[in-house]
Amino acid sequence: MTASKTTFLLCLALLLLPGSAPQRRAHADEPDDAKKAIRKVLDDQVVAWNKGDLPGFMEGYWQSKDLRFYSGKDVTSGWQATLDRYRKRYQGEGKKMGQLSFGDVEVELLGAEHALVRGRWQVVLPDQTVSGLFTLICKKLAPGWRIVHDHTSS
Amino acid sequence: MTASKTTFLLCLALLLLPGSAPQRRAHADEPDDAKKAIRKVLDDQVVAWNKGDLPGFMEGYWQSKDLRFYSGKDVTSGWQATLDRYRKRYQGEGKKMGQLSFGDVEVELLGAEHALVRGRWQVVLPDQTVSGLFTLICKKLAPGWRIVHDHTSS
Repeated sequence: MTASKTTFLLCLALLLLPGSAPQRRAHADEPDDAKKAIRKVLDDQVVAWNKGDLPGFMEGYWQSKDLRFYSGKDVTSGWQATLDRYRKRYQGEGKKMGQLSFGDVEVELLGAEHALVRGRWQVVLPDQTVSGLFTLICKKLAPGWRIVHDHTSS
Repeated sequence: MTASKTTFLLCLALLLLPGSAPQRRAHADEPDDAKKAIRKVLDDQVVAWNKGDLPGFMEGYWQSKDLRFYSGKDVTSGWQATLDRYRKRYQGEGKKMGQLSFGDVEVELLGAEHALVRGRWQVVLPDQTVSGLFTLICKKLAPGWRIVHDHTSS
């Protein structure tokens, strides 16, 4: 075999190599890690809500004017407007935040940077229990996974 | 320069080459093509609905038991159950399908195989107009782009 043929075959081997074993292992864990990170965003939201910490709850959302919050027939655009909406609804005069819980939560990765998260929400208030469904689109951003679109119904 | 060095440099050049110009142009058009294809799925749904063709309308949905349809507090699972729900709601005794339209539709690609589609829906019935918001997750499947998750509220 000539030297150039050997070099060519070496290059070909490099091209076809599927990556070293540790890299492959790290890659295989990525979806699980992402799902865990997304679940943690939701779990942290529940903890914050149930302490009456609305700004803490809002940390799960994308801090952007492009955050979109759909509820019933109403579109709320932007992080601040979404916080204001929650304040009015759950911290207005005579209002309580109650105890939030999520159920039947499913996390499905859509490519490497987005996820669909869907499930049920429930807020137990002193005088009533409100509940419904949610669909979230989460995106992997610099500070971590954040909700960029929230559609909620009841 | 030795023959093996030349071969090595040629291999390196092949590795670093970003693809031929026509390939790159095709790639640049892909997001627009995908968005157009997704818009067409919705447009076809509207045409089918307004002809009273519910199976035609349902062609926009993933023909799978894993299709999910969220409305208010209710989860419907599967293509057939979703068709049955629409039939009951809009083709039951004394029911009309009316005229459907979508508004403020935004299509955002999430990776190469998924898209978030959101907007407003309206159905004008003989005696009333019903309306609300929708969030769709579309997926690029063998037959084309299909809705795999639908969250609707009113």
